[in-house]
Amino acid sequence: MVGMDPMDLMVETEALARIGLVVVVAVVGRWLLVRGINLAVKRAVKRSEKVASGWAGKALGVRSPERYEQRLKTIGTLSGSVVTFTIAVIALITILSLLSVPVAPLLASAGIGGVALGFGAQSLVKDFLAGIAMIIEDQYGVGDLIDTGSATGTVEDVGLRVTRLRDATGQVWYVRNGEILRVGNQSQGWSTAVADVPIAPDEDTAKALAALEQAADEVAAEGEFADVLLERPNVVGVNEMTPYAMTLRIVAKTAPNKHWPVQRALLEQAQNALTAAGIRQPAPGVIAG
Amino acid sequence: MVGMDPMDLMVETEALARIGLVVVVAVVGRWLLVRGINLAVKRAVKRSEKVASGWAGKALGVRSPERYEQRLKTIGTLSGSVVTFTIAVIALITILSLLSVPVAPLLASAGIGGVALGFGAQSLVKDFLAGIAMIIEDQYGVGDLIDTGSATGTVEDVGLRVTRLRDATGQVWYVRNGEILRVGNQSQGWSTAVADVPIAPDEDTAKALAALEQAADEVAAEGEFADVLLERPNVVGVNEMTPYAMTLRIVAKTAPNKHWPVQRALLEQAQNALTAAGIRQPAPGVIAG
Amino acid sequence: MVGMDPMDLMVETEALARIGLVVVVAVVGRWLLVRGINLAVKRAVKRSEKVASGWAGKALGVRSPERYEQRLKTIGTLSGSVVTFTIAVIALITILSLLSVPVAPLLASAGIGGVALGFGAQSLVKDFLAGIAMIIEDQYGVGDLIDTGSATGTVEDVGLRVTRLRDATGQVWYVRNGEILRVGNQSQGWSTAVADVPIAPDEDTAKALAALEQAADEVAAEGEFADVLLERPNVVGVNEMTPYAMTLRIVAKTAPNKHWPVQRALLEQAQNALTAAGIRQPAPGVIAG
Amino acid sequence: MVGMDPMDLMVETEALARIGLVVVVAVVGRWLLVRGINLAVKRAVKRSEKVASGWAGKALGVRSPERYEQRLKTIGTLSGSVVTFTIAVIALITILSLLSVPVAPLLASAGIGGVALGFGAQSLVKDFLAGIAMIIEDQYGVGDLIDTGSATGTVEDVGLRVTRLRDATGQVWYVRNGEILRVGNQSQGWSTAVADVPIAPDEDTAKALAALEQAADEVAAEGEFADVLLERPNVVGVNEMTPYAMTLRIVAKTAPNKHWPVQRALLEQAQNALTAAGIRQPAPGVIAG
Amino acid sequence: MVGMDPMDLMVETEALARIGLVVVVAVVGRWLLVRGINLAVKRAVKRSEKVASGWAGKALGVRSPERYEQRLKTIGTLSGSVVTFTIAVIALITILSLLSVPVAPLLASAGIGGVALGFGAQSLVKDFLAGIAMIIEDQYGVGDLIDTGSATGTVEDVGLRVTRLRDATGQVWYVRNGEILRVGNQSQGWSTAVADVPIAPDEDTAKALAALEQAADEVAAEGEFADVLLERPNVVGVNEMTPYAMTLRIVAKTAPNKHWPVQRALLEQAQNALTAAGIRQPAPGVIAG
Amino acid sequence: MVGMDPMDLMVETEALARIGLVVVVAVVGRWLLVRGINLAVKRAVKRSEKVASGWAGKALGVRSPERYEQRLKTIGTLSGSVVTFTIAVIALITILSLLSVPVAPLLASAGIGGVALGFGAQSLVKDFLAGIAMIIEDQYGVGDLIDTGSATGTVEDVGLRVTRLRDATGQVWYVRNGEILRVGNQSQGWSTAVADVPIAPDEDTAKALAALEQAADEVAAEGEFADVLLERPNVVGVNEMTPYAMTLRIVAKTAPNKHWPVQRALLEQAQNALTAAGIRQPAPGVIAG
Amino acid sequence: MVGMDPMDLMVETEALARIGLVVVVAVVGRWLLVRGINLAVKRAVKRSEKVASGWAGKALGVRSPERYEQRLKTIGTLSGSVVTFTIAVIALITILSLLSVPVAPLLASAGIGGVALGFGAQSLVKDFLAGIAMIIEDQYGVGDLIDTGSATGTVEDVGLRVTRLRDATGQVWYVRNGEILRVGNQSQGWSTAVADVPIAPDEDTAKALAALEQAADEVAAEGEFADVLLERPNVVGVNEMTPYAMTLRIVAKTAPNKHWPVQRALLEQAQNALTAAGIRQPAPGVIAG
Repeated sequence: MVGMDPMDLMVETEALARIGLVVVVAVVGRWLLVRGINLAVKRAVKRSEKVASGWAGKALGVRSPERYEQRLKTIGTLSGSVVTFTIAVIALITILSLLSVPVAPLLASAGIGGVALGFGAQSLVKDFLAGIAMIIEDQYGVGDLIDTGSATGTVEDVGLRVTRLRDATGQVWYVRNGEILRVGNQSQGWSTAVADVPIAPDEDTAKALAALEQAADEVAAEGEFADVLLERPNVVGVNEMTPYAMTLRIVAKTAPNKHWPVQRALLEQAQNALTAAGIRQPAPGVIAG
Repeated sequence: MVGMDPMDLMVETEALARIGLVVVVAVVGRWLLVRGINLAVKRAVKRSEKVASGWAGKALGVRSPERYEQRLKTIGTLSGSVVTFTIAVIALITILSLLSVPVAPLLASAGIGGVALGFGAQSLVKDFLAGIAMIIEDQYGVGDLIDTGSATGTVEDVGLRVTRLRDATGQVWYVRNGEILRVGNQSQGWSTAVADVPIAPDEDTAKALAALEQAADEVAAEGEFADVLLERPNVVGVNEMTPYAMTLRIVAKTAPNKHWPVQRALLEQAQNALTAAGIRQPAPGVIAG
Repeated sequence: MVGMDPMDLMVETEALARIGLVVVVAVVGRWLLVRGINLAVKRAVKRSEKVASGWAGKALGVRSPERYEQRLKTIGTLSGSVVTFTIAVIALITILSLLSVPVAPLLASAGIGGVALGFGAQSLVKDFLAGIAMIIEDQYGVGDLIDTGSATGTVEDVGLRVTRLRDATGQVWYVRNGEILRVGNQSQGWSTAVADVPIAPDEDTAKALAALEQAADEVAAEGEFADVLLERPNVVGVNEMTPYAMTLRIVAKTAPNKHWPVQRALLEQAQNALTAAGIRQPAPGVIAG
Repeated sequence: MVGMDPMDLMVETEALARIGLVVVVAVVGRWLLVRGINLAVKRAVKRSEKVASGWAGKALGVRSPERYEQRLKTIGTLSGSVVTFTIAVIALITILSLLSVPVAPLLASAGIGGVALGFGAQSLVKDFLAGIAMIIEDQYGVGDLIDTGSATGTVEDVGLRVTRLRDATGQVWYVRNGEILRVGNQSQGWSTAVADVPIAPDEDTAKALAALEQAADEVAAEGEFADVLLERPNVVGVNEMTPYAMTLRIVAKTAPNKHWPVQRALLEQAQNALTAAGIRQPAPGVIAG
Repeated sequence: MVGMDPMDLMVETEALARIGLVVVVAVVGRWLLVRGINLAVKRAVKRSEKVASGWAGKALGVRSPERYEQRLKTIGTLSGSVVTFTIAVIALITILSLLSVPVAPLLASAGIGGVALGFGAQSLVKDFLAGIAMIIEDQYGVGDLIDTGSATGTVEDVGLRVTRLRDATGQVWYVRNGEILRVGNQSQGWSTAVADVPIAPDEDTAKALAALEQAADEVAAEGEFADVLLERPNVVGVNEMTPYAMTLRIVAKTAPNKHWPVQRALLEQAQNALTAAGIRQPAPGVIAG
Repeated sequence: MVGMDPMDLMVETEALARIGLVVVVAVVGRWLLVRGINLAVKRAVKRSEKVASGWAGKALGVRSPERYEQRLKTIGTLSGSVVTFTIAVIALITILSLLSVPVAPLLASAGIGGVALGFGAQSLVKDFLAGIAMIIEDQYGVGDLIDTGSATGTVEDVGLRVTRLRDATGQVWYVRNGEILRVGNQSQGWSTAVADVPIAPDEDTAKALAALEQAADEVAAEGEFADVLLERPNVVGVNEMTPYAMTLRIVAKTAPNKHWPVQRALLEQAQNALTAAGIRQPAPGVIAG
Repeated sequence: MVGMDPMDLMVETEALARIGLVVVVAVVGRWLLVRGINLAVKRAVKRSEKVASGWAGKALGVRSPERYEQRLKTIGTLSGSVVTFTIAVIALITILSLLSVPVAPLLASAGIGGVALGFGAQSLVKDFLAGIAMIIEDQYGVGDLIDTGSATGTVEDVGLRVTRLRDATGQVWYVRNGEILRVGNQSQGWSTAVADVPIAPDEDTAKALAALEQAADEVAAEGEFADVLLERPNVVGVNEMTPYAMTLRIVAKTAPNKHWPVQRALLEQAQNALTAAGIRQPAPGVIAG
């Protein structure tokens, strides 16, 4: 490079100045973005506290502000890393290009592979984006009982790509977030116990319904269900008539996920009350020639 | 940069002039777009008032202009933010490019990642666009009972990405808007109670239908259903004949979502009337050798 | 810009001339396109009148030329807006480019977002295009009873993105046009009442069919169905034999959507006629030891 | 443009010469293409006549050469319009580009919208291409009874985008051509009547089959089916044994879509013959204690 | 073009030389490719003869070398046309470009339409490619009985886009080749007749199996099945036990598509043998009080 | 190259200098990336040890740190190879381009094929990415019993593209990782034995439940289940009432995949206890005339 | 070209030198790649021998090293052809481009067609890639009995695009490799015979299980099953209780695909033993009034 032309030198100087500009823009840009993320997280945490305290006023609210805050911070940290990495890559490419290293073929060959990769990676990206959206919307948290369509169970871990559940039989489920088209959360609100009792289709309906009212009273009076039942079980009447049976229904509102024992108690008491009242049941077992 | 050529200076001056132009265009463009959005919102609000007052004249209309107006304003604000953000990004890129910072590799590498991201993000974008369209068309609002295909319940929140429902059992559902291919809104208009009563296939049809007419009269006379029944229940006749039973049907038009109690009352009264009229039911339980 | 070179001036002059050309082309092009659309609409309206009057000659035709004309005008207005908007955007870009504002990065960054948006928006675009095609082909109109696959009901509104139906139970359905793979229109032509009557498999077929002919005569003679029945109900014979029953079928052609009452009357009369003729029915209820 | 350089003038002259060349190429190219299409149509029409006359020699051929010819001409006209439109657009763009109007940004912005539109429009294009292929292959014509998977009925109209059917119940179906994965045409060839007759599983098979042969003879002798039956109904034997019944089968080849009355007549005669021969049927109705 | 510069002339001369080169390359390239295709076809025909003669030695081989050869030639001709057309188009574009006609906008606008078309046309291309692959692999030929998933029948025509079948009921099916995910060819090899005979679950198994062996002997001895049965029917034993019946199974290997009559004969003889041996059948019809 | 211009020489020298830079960057970049991967693996191994020891404290934890470590190292090695290969390819392309070999057409033609390949290869890439994510998240390991949706069995091999399972019948399954939308791992935690016992619907519920409690005690007392049962089986009560039977349920928590023998023992003891207590079962077999 | 400028000559000389370089790189590159493939094949063959001999030591291993080796060589040859073809095409394009033949429009028009083709060809490419992956992983070979989801049978041919199977009924299946989401190979390991025996729900369980143990002993003692049974059949106990029956289960591990005769023998012996022990079966046929 001895004997270089001053013109060349100036070009080089200008390139160096531009490299410096790139570095400055990269550092400042990263700082601004990370700071913006942190501010957003802080604001979201504050808002979540208000939301949570608002919810806390309602009897059934179970979400804790701690859980939400913790998650927000996780996302903040993660976003910061993504921003830092992205800006570093871009700055590197820009500097290489200013140094006249031919960046185009480098990017072109990456682009060809990128198409193949992009198609294949779309479900991965979909899973992550769905996971991020779910966490931001706080659809469920660790300990909630949820129905994801492909598996139902108690949430053990809310990941960015997969959600880990444990179902009632003890099996652990890893469900990809992008495959969850709708989530049913059974731990926010109440549950409903539904007891369907079939009787012979030609029985006296009024007498049978009276017996069921009595059964409902008995279940409501059991100490075991004092905290579980949100209201006295409700005998709604004749629910269906088929050629084989007339079905009567009792419905009870319970605390979340506490409906199974209530439902079983209702069935047991209903059967007892109907037998006591002499209501026949529509079973082939009672056909007597 | 000492000893720069006047030519260079002029180029710089021109570039600065162009940067200025970009800034002006950006600011003016943003102002015009945001103003356009606001005008569109205002016009839509006015139109919605007319629509709502027109609807209010009809007995079953339940949509309130307040709800619609509120939503329109939300969309207006959101659109303004999107416009501001987009224009800022474009102006930044243009200015960088005028400053001879090599924008191409920056965009190229973003493009490669963008393809992968674009594929993965398509369901996210789809959800948002579907959400926006739904809100603009006012398909449902908070408090409506809707059927989204994957879940049925009362709307608790209409979000841009997800709709939150609470079903009859108390379970909360988060349904992605883009996955809702069709929505059934059960709170706009009326509901229908359908009572199917099976009788022995060789019974006297005329006698049985007369008994059902009597049951319909009794249900229509109950005070409980005075506001619920939109018309006297209608005995439509023999609905089906199978080898096991002949099925008679009563149909009743009710206020939205009030059909369940009517249907149960119809079943109960029909069973009573049929028993009183001595019509046999087709149950195995009544076979007597 | 003092002391500019005449060469530059000429370049500027030429650029201005070209900007002028762009504006002229844009205005003229828009005018031509909008006029073409209006002409096409007018021609279509004329043709629709001929079609409608041709159809009106046929007994079952229910399409009104007014409905079609109104829709065509809606599409015309809409197309005009689209054309005006598109041409304005293109002219703006061209002018900016002639003013040497760097349009490429602007479009490039729009392109990156455009890919993500394009993927997500495809179902929106699909819905609109399907809606336009449906309206042009006049597959159904307000008041028709249609089957869209995901919902069946009376059309309340034919939108570009969604079709609004109200089904028989009073529920309102919003069905996205792009999701309608096939439409069944039940209001163009006639409907068919089908009454399947099961009898004991070892009964006298000739006697049973004679009884059904008598039932068909009685239904045809009822004044209620004078305008509804397009022909005397037709007893087509033994339709199926299973181990449990032999099924006889009566078929009747009715005015559109009037088949339900006819079908029920046929079932009732058939049961009466069979009982009168002493034909046993295959029900478990008639087993006598 | 006063005082222009002769060089510039020459450039302009050359550009004008090229514009002329473009116009000539466009006109000649269009003429050649349209002529080629017309020739192809003519050749196809001739070939179709040969095909049709060849088919006419076969007993079951029902396709008319008129139908095919008419359709070919429709396609020819349509293709000509497409060619004319396409060439006009291309020539316009080329001329604009020769006039130095910046065509690139114009196309670029069209390209961005084109991606979004292209994705959304793919089902539209798919429908059209499938329609064209179907018409070229003459899979079905107006009046044929076809099964498209989503709807079965008689073809009323073969469109480029949709096929219109009317099913047996009088309902009109609009089926998108691109959604038809396979078509079953029931009007080319013959149909088959299948009568399945269940008898008690411990009956005398030989006696029962003899009775069915007699029933087949009687149906074959009915004058009503003289033109319908392509051969004497064939008693194929014991088709299935379940714990409840032994099923015997009669099969008959009939003219297209004429199998329903034959099937019903076979069932009726078979039941009569079996009753006459004293073969018990496996119905619960015949259990006698 | 009077007074043109010799420089220009030379450029023109060089362009002409290049046009000549393009024409020569196009002609030679086409000749080479078509010749290569012809050679490949010839080689394939030869190989197919060897394959066919090898298969002919095996008893069940039904493929004829003539059929394969004919198809190969069809593909050869078709490929030649495609090659000729493609090369002509490319040469035309190249020559236009050498004549300085602006080819880029021409291709660009084609490209935009091409994306929309490409998406829509993908099922068309898929059908053709699948058809070509199927024909090359000779998966089935005219006269074979195949199961394509959406339709089962005898192949009437093997097209590049669709396969035409005629099913057992006489219905013609047009199945798109790209929609055939797997093909079952029932005309290459043998078929299996399976006769399942239910008996009372508490019967003497040994006695019942002995009766079935006797039935198998009788069917094997029937002259009708001499060419059809590839081996004596095999009584495999007790196949299943349900609460209602014990099912015994006989299996027989037959010539392709000849299993139905064998299966029916086995059922008939089995029922006769079991009745003769006094084995009770599990039918409700035989319950005697 | 004799008599070359010094200018050219300098260009060549500069190109050589740039080639050198590329080589240096490639080597250093590869070294940095591989080192980064190794560090990440080491850190992950350390973290896994902590996780594993944490889990080991819990009674049901079955994951060994060895398994995880081994897998991490496999991934580390693999990633290193990928990085080395990618960098080598990019460096090669860059050097060729610096040597003025026209790389663009080379990449362009690769790009065209790349699109076709990219679409086709997407499921391959999807499988690999899903496999990598699964291994990183340690969803399952060799020896675990998992439910992949399409197959359930014991994992024999965890590959990057496919997972090999052996199901309970001895069949080996190769399941593509990208097709596994959710995984159920039955070897992490516990399993649940569920015994449903139907009784006559009019039986004495209290007596029946007492008998089941006794059966639960007996199963809990069996030595065979000492290590298997995690708690005494729990009689939860009346689970369902149908017209045919009342179903009682016993539930027991067991060691992973040990629930089948417990469930069978519960059914056997329950049946014994109910028979001993004289509770009738709802079977048709016990109908006595 | 008379009187050409020495400058031009030098350019031409340089171009020729570059063409030479391209040819050399192409030849050397091809040689290196093909050699690499051959080496990889050799190494894989060696490894397969070790794997195979390792497997041979295990009782159930059925894979032969010959089969694997043969397949590897096929892949090697195929890969070599692909490499040769690809390099030839690229070299041709590069040389044309160095000769200043305008390659860009050539590639551009290919690109437009390539998009349409690429979309359509993706299932073809998918099939090939899946086929290659399957062969490399040796998921199955000729003679194995596999379950591909859409068809189950014995493999007759493992192709790159399709796998040919012959199922138990003699039907030949062509299954596209890309459509095989999971494969079940029933010839690697063992099979399981499962015999479910229903008895009356109120029978003596202990007595019934003892009878089944006896049946298991008898089957284990049959000479026919000496090589087939891998262990004595195992009576696992009461498997299920329904209102109609109590189901007992026997399970036996057998050699691959030999479970059907074992299962049938178990059912036969179990029925004999239960009848001998006087255990009633739950069949309607045994109801005696």
